[in-house]
Amino acid sequence: MNQHLVQSVFGSIAKAGLDLLERRTGKPSTAKLVSLCKDLLSEKGEASGIALALEVHETYQALNDDGKLAFFTFLEEHMSPDPENVQSALDQYKLTPDSKNLEALILAAEPSRLELIRRMNMSPRGVHALVSMRIDLLRFVREHKNLVIVDNDFRNLFASWFNRGFLNLRRIDWKTPAHILEKLIAYESVHAITNWDDLRRRLAQDRRCYAFYHPALGEDEPLIFVEVALVDDLADNVQALLNLEDNIGDPQKVNTAIFYSINNCQPGLKGISLGNFLIKQVVADLKSELPNLKKFSTLSPVPGFVKWIRDTAYSHKDTPLRLMAIQTCEQLDQYKQGESTSLQKEMEIPLKKLCANYLVLTKSESGQVLNPVARFHLGNGAILERINWLGDTSVKGVTESAGLMVNYLYDIRYIETNHEAFVKKGEVICSTQVKSLLK
Amino acid sequence: MNQHLVQSVFGSIAKAGLDLLERRTGKPSTAKLVSLCKDLLSEKGEASGIALALEVHETYQALNDDGKLAFFTFLEEHMSPDPENVQSALDQYKLTPDSKNLEALILAAEPSRLELIRRMNMSPRGVHALVSMRIDLLRFVREHKNLVIVDNDFRNLFASWFNRGFLNLRRIDWKTPAHILEKLIAYESVHAITNWDDLRRRLAQDRRCYAFYHPALGEDEPLIFVEVALVDDLADNVQALLNLEDNIGDPQKVNTAIFYSINNCQPGLKGISLGNFLIKQVVADLKSELPNLKKFSTLSPVPGFVKWIRDTAYSHKDTPLRLMAIQTCEQLDQYKQGESTSLQKEMEIPLKKLCANYLVLTKSESGQVLNPVARFHLGNGAILERINWLGDTSVKGVTESAGLMVNYLYDIRYIETNHEAFVKKGEVICSTQVKSLLK
Amino acid sequence: MNQHLVQSVFGSIAKAGLDLLERRTGKPSTAKLVSLCKDLLSEKGEASGIALALEVHETYQALNDDGKLAFFTFLEEHMSPDPENVQSALDQYKLTPDSKNLEALILAAEPSRLELIRRMNMSPRGVHALVSMRIDLLRFVREHKNLVIVDNDFRNLFASWFNRGFLNLRRIDWKTPAHILEKLIAYESVHAITNWDDLRRRLAQDRRCYAFYHPALGEDEPLIFVEVALVDDLADNVQALLNLEDNIGDPQKVNTAIFYSINNCQPGLKGISLGNFLIKQVVADLKSELPNLKKFSTLSPVPGFVKWIRDTAYSHKDTPLRLMAIQTCEQLDQYKQGESTSLQKEMEIPLKKLCANYLVLTKSESGQVLNPVARFHLGNGAILERINWLGDTSVKGVTESAGLMVNYLYDIRYIETNHEAFVKKGEVICSTQVKSLLK
Amino acid sequence: MNQHLVQSVFGSIAKAGLDLLERRTGKPSTAKLVSLCKDLLSEKGEASGIALALEVHETYQALNDDGKLAFFTFLEEHMSPDPENVQSALDQYKLTPDSKNLEALILAAEPSRLELIRRMNMSPRGVHALVSMRIDLLRFVREHKNLVIVDNDFRNLFASWFNRGFLNLRRIDWKTPAHILEKLIAYESVHAITNWDDLRRRLAQDRRCYAFYHPALGEDEPLIFVEVALVDDLADNVQALLNLEDNIGDPQKVNTAIFYSINNCQPGLKGISLGNFLIKQVVADLKSELPNLKKFSTLSPVPGFVKWIRDTAYSHKDTPLRLMAIQTCEQLDQYKQGESTSLQKEMEIPLKKLCANYLVLTKSESGQVLNPVARFHLGNGAILERINWLGDTSVKGVTESAGLMVNYLYDIRYIETNHEAFVKKGEVICSTQVKSLLK
Repeated sequence: MNQHLVQSVFGSIAKAGLDLLERRTGKPSTAKLVSLCKDLLSEKGEASGIALALEVHETYQALNDDGKLAFFTFLEEHMSPDPENVQSALDQYKLTPDSKNLEALILAAEPSRLELIRRMNMSPRGVHALVSMRIDLLRFVREHKNLVIVDNDFRNLFASWFNRGFLNLRRIDWKTPAHILEKLIAYESVHAITNWDDLRRRLAQDRRCYAFYHPALGEDEPLIFVEVALVDDLADNVQALLNLEDNIGDPQKVNTAIFYSINNCQPGLKGISLGNFLIKQVVADLKSELPNLKKFSTLSPVPGFVKWIRDTAYSHKDTPLRLMAIQTCEQLDQYKQGESTSLQKEMEIPLKKLCANYLVLTKSESGQVLNPVARFHLGNGAILERINWLGDTSVKGVTESAGLMVNYLYDIRYIETNHEAFVKKGEVICSTQVKSLLK
Repeated sequence: MNQHLVQSVFGSIAKAGLDLLERRTGKPSTAKLVSLCKDLLSEKGEASGIALALEVHETYQALNDDGKLAFFTFLEEHMSPDPENVQSALDQYKLTPDSKNLEALILAAEPSRLELIRRMNMSPRGVHALVSMRIDLLRFVREHKNLVIVDNDFRNLFASWFNRGFLNLRRIDWKTPAHILEKLIAYESVHAITNWDDLRRRLAQDRRCYAFYHPALGEDEPLIFVEVALVDDLADNVQALLNLEDNIGDPQKVNTAIFYSINNCQPGLKGISLGNFLIKQVVADLKSELPNLKKFSTLSPVPGFVKWIRDTAYSHKDTPLRLMAIQTCEQLDQYKQGESTSLQKEMEIPLKKLCANYLVLTKSESGQVLNPVARFHLGNGAILERINWLGDTSVKGVTESAGLMVNYLYDIRYIETNHEAFVKKGEVICSTQVKSLLK
Repeated sequence: MNQHLVQSVFGSIAKAGLDLLERRTGKPSTAKLVSLCKDLLSEKGEASGIALALEVHETYQALNDDGKLAFFTFLEEHMSPDPENVQSALDQYKLTPDSKNLEALILAAEPSRLELIRRMNMSPRGVHALVSMRIDLLRFVREHKNLVIVDNDFRNLFASWFNRGFLNLRRIDWKTPAHILEKLIAYESVHAITNWDDLRRRLAQDRRCYAFYHPALGEDEPLIFVEVALVDDLADNVQALLNLEDNIGDPQKVNTAIFYSINNCQPGLKGISLGNFLIKQVVADLKSELPNLKKFSTLSPVPGFVKWIRDTAYSHKDTPLRLMAIQTCEQLDQYKQGESTSLQKEMEIPLKKLCANYLVLTKSESGQVLNPVARFHLGNGAILERINWLGDTSVKGVTESAGLMVNYLYDIRYIETNHEAFVKKGEVICSTQVKSLLK
Repeated sequence: MNQHLVQSVFGSIAKAGLDLLERRTGKPSTAKLVSLCKDLLSEKGEASGIALALEVHETYQALNDDGKLAFFTFLEEHMSPDPENVQSALDQYKLTPDSKNLEALILAAEPSRLELIRRMNMSPRGVHALVSMRIDLLRFVREHKNLVIVDNDFRNLFASWFNRGFLNLRRIDWKTPAHILEKLIAYESVHAITNWDDLRRRLAQDRRCYAFYHPALGEDEPLIFVEVALVDDLADNVQALLNLEDNIGDPQKVNTAIFYSINNCQPGLKGISLGNFLIKQVVADLKSELPNLKKFSTLSPVPGFVKWIRDTAYSHKDTPLRLMAIQTCEQLDQYKQGESTSLQKEMEIPLKKLCANYLVLTKSESGQVLNPVARFHLGNGAILERINWLGDTSVKGVTESAGLMVNYLYDIRYIETNHEAFVKKGEVICSTQVKSLLK
């Protein structure tokens, strides 16, 4: 079978000769890489797969961008299923619909690069190398849409390998090794960690941080982490949460867990569902550890909101919303951080109304909720609970989210139905308070 | 997409009603299980996959054999790719061969039960449950050949999950926890471990035992283990290797590692390539730890040999081989363990010649080497080095292998070419000594 | 200070010459050892103590018994405090009772071998070597009473080093490494572990085993272990507890923890109080883990009881007790295991009465309770709760304890007062039931 | 025995009544503490030592300074050996010099507080509490010289418990938990760690940090740590070593290990020999890990040097040294960091000569080398190898050490003889280069 596969895949190469590839890239290395891949898929790969897989990775890593692009293009052009093969397997199966013919059909439609990627995984630190290879691929995909189909295979395989069942949840605290903590500083992009004192405060006893790990990536590589504040009542302002001067609270005595930041550490795992599982697992674990916790909610930014207000103001449809947007634009231009409390008060209601409209009613062309943060949490089954004016008064908070922060509430009892309503009917579940802003 | 998948899969069910299933099995539980699987594949599964997956496993485990068989039959009948869908996706792709249509084609040809199995993996101890589920499935497959295609999907997914890159090698010795050691006793089927003293001797400093583990199965579940004796020169007799009275040797001073037993601990992982990788990894590790080791060889039984001699004796073709077989049959009947040294001497050459014929020249209908042990080691790239008369004088050794034991030599330098010659041309690489037995 | 110490200690040696030592032992090695000890106590020891200490141990271990005895004799003769030095330090202190003179006095009265032992501890595995050295010493002490004072110093130092505060409690179960479990088999001397099945049953979920470890001896060396059975109500028969056929109980549903065996693994730690702490810690831990446990009791043998009956029968004092003893002796001679139920019934009351007399009223010359097991548990503050006829029907149980087994009850509330009454007034606290046997 | 001890110790208390103590401190708590100590030493302590020890610590920790001082004073006044008892034990022993009487004598001269401290160690985290108790004690000792004798007992016991044989060496690097790294920042007092970037540089691959740990204090509490730079040739300037911009070197390719800082983390372990063992162990470990390392040396400050120059300048003895000191004082006053290179050159030779005189020839009243850093390293057997002008140009370096830094060389081959010469004869071993500065 494998012999067949190798021949069918590499037949076209044989014809044109590897020379061609060399000429195309001006370098012999992609040709060498392709030849190694051929070996890896052949009997040689069965006999000494680990050594060969290692050589494949080393050869790949030595390539420059042209060479890498040529390699991915090869994967796309020569290792996709061949429609003729699929058709003949399908005909055969229609004729005799037995197990053997079905298996042949399934196999004929499977891109052969899938088996190649699986074999590349055998080398020591193979997963590391593949995850890092996909970072390159994602970069190329932006300009070379034909590579999307190659990336799909990486993503599907990673989704299978990084299945929730294989992940380990670990708490990160001040006893965690420094080289891990350093990664938190590097990957926190929602509310930047300014220094080690800031980090330390975020790991004190009334704060929590949890991360998913995968055994094959090892203890040095968190995949994704979430930061939680244990406080009394729904937090409405993120600066207060991050205040270093704040007294450290008693986690046994508060009633609310606020998820105020979630970040991926592995760009090579883009598109693999991790955040959804992480939040729900942490909700479950906190619930069981601290029965005093009654509410689980995020405090989330509204990126794109200011841009949307401006777009609305400049739109051609003359709606009441547009008028509100025009006025708000002017106020935002006047607004200076920390000043003019009367202006602040004036702005509150219109901004909240605009925000409710933005989050609940504004959809993309494909019919999805436009705001990505809302889409993520609502898609997880959370409720749009509250919109907070002056929730993030940092420069970033004001310029992107007009200073608003939103609470998405995770209520385990309703997560399933919320999610179903959202996915099936596009329904955004929101609190009475938010609903009233829509009138 | 998932919604589509769920509807297309479960549409037929809906029509006939789950009642039918209940009537077929006389139990409501398979219907309930199928309904849970539907939820798991739907939005509900996305929202609360872990809890649902757990419920699926619990429901499955409560089924009796009829219920389980009905479930697997359902997987086969309703979750295989639909030829109509494949055809229409294929037509579309032929018309417009872009990424999107290719993806749709690949998806159409993928059995939807694959995604179901992946989601079942999310539950705590999901892998344990799936591996154990396949033990049931393999049992049914024997009589229900239609289920082969379902088992293929399990096997392919397991092959991806239990990829060499995800396995950990660990040494097992007398400091290993007793509940693991107990598994060695339970799963050793080549040369039974008679008691803890026997086990202890096999773990002394001149013996080695290594096992593969998978992180998701945890530290309590070895997958496969190999037992090695560090001795001087190629061992030709297994009783000598297992002798409790033998002095414990110095591993730094011997020149040969004898692999005398390899055993799977996970029947649910049948068909997943593990032994090949295990032997080669252990060869590499021993080589680097003990540079004094120059030869790596097995001491292996020849199961089926006695049966083959008798078949040959009763065959219709009147060849010299048949005459040799007839005579040997008589001698084997006379032969009593430990006795009649003149008979022993007489038997040696004919038996070895027959054995060489059996191992090298006797092929199955599909053209493969008939003896499974030979097929395994030759397929790994080993050489058929030596046939040893009186290599296993136990009752089992005499009745199955006519007392012969074989050395298959692993010489890293030639493994790749040996394997290639064996797989591509069916060539059995053997030593001059063995070749001379074929004349 | 050290220089002074070394000179004063080794002065006498210098005079006589190390030759003398050589002549005495016929071997140069003790002399070499003494010379190394001198170096270890000198500046050399300060500069390269670890290497020197290692050499001391290696030299010691190479000695034969004569050499070792000569070494310990040297420690006794030359490294005890010198009365003249003590007197002059004392005079000085009486004259000027200040800190400096007090320190000098304390130092003058401290045997210099204490510092030697401390320095010998610096070598890698120094504690192992010292504990093993004391095994030799204890052997010599039996015949060489002068060495008692040397052993006192070892014991005092070990008591300080193996202080409860430095010990770790660990549970031993079927997941414990085999080389540790093997030690349980080796050191269990109360109720021998007959094989690995027996051991496994003792580690099942309704049985417990705990051990103390010391960090410097490492994870391979348990110091002492206790075996506990979790059952319903006070156990009265040990064969029932050890029965392999018995169903495994649910530890959450029983009310009693029976301590049925406690054993030391380190003969070199003889006389260091470990068992007392171990039992109490396990009582506390079990209480907190399993609140369903209401009673904590031993099931203990009565070693020496049969001998005491015979001694009493042959004594000259013509008491009712003697008559009872005479009759019982005859019955014991007739008694055969498992037989003659009428004799069994007859024997019960007299045996229990004799036993109560033996345990409660029979004291040694120094006024202590004679039976060592009773002395240990009563000294820990336990209560003599019940005497069980046919509690141990093994050969050992019948020939040593006349088949009786005793429950000593640990009731945390009364441990302190019981212990105080026992130590101060020699009062044996017993239950009403036992008291009634004394009438 | 214990009863006797308790009575003799607490007899005097009984007479005066605990009231007295209360009146003296104005607080009932010291009296309560003393009473608990009495219980701990009595039978109660034997029965429930752990709980009692815990109560003792809690009571102690609740005391204010007056109460603590009263407690230590009690330990001094009432728990020292009684000269009368010592005399009578001594008389008895002189009369009958047997083991029993010797033991009684040793016991009579042992302060009873030693046993008290041992028992206080039994409580959970007992060692932590005792080490922290000694921090208090050391504070009181400064003004209450009578407490020296109490501190001696703590120190002696700690020396026995923190014996080299019980310590574990561990490497500290960037993978170490942050709460440990934080302690490095807190306790580094030689060359302050300014921030986490500074720390990180000190833990890069061409730097090393090692610490001793004690099992009873646990993995969170390093005792002492040493910082090492792996460089080429003897470093002569500490700012260069700590330069964050410096390229990270390859530890396999350099020839010298520079010990540039050693710090205690446990003020309660003052006077316990740890640094000596730490340096030598690290030298041995580095030697074996990196055979390329040929030299092991410190780069050390000369604290007290500037003060000594000024004292010499103001002294009455009109020596050439005084004249040199006077001139140097003037130059030091003129010297401004980073300036006047001609002055710098002028100062070099006189300063080095003065420094050689200070380190080699200047002794304290008790005849010891005056400079504490020199005393430590020379006492360890190191050689005074080189004096470096402008070795530390920080403000601290200039004001304390006149900008000089010294290399003390650890050459394992000569450590023993150097140490012996230094301790016995007060000889300072120095290189030819340093010797020439003394002329």
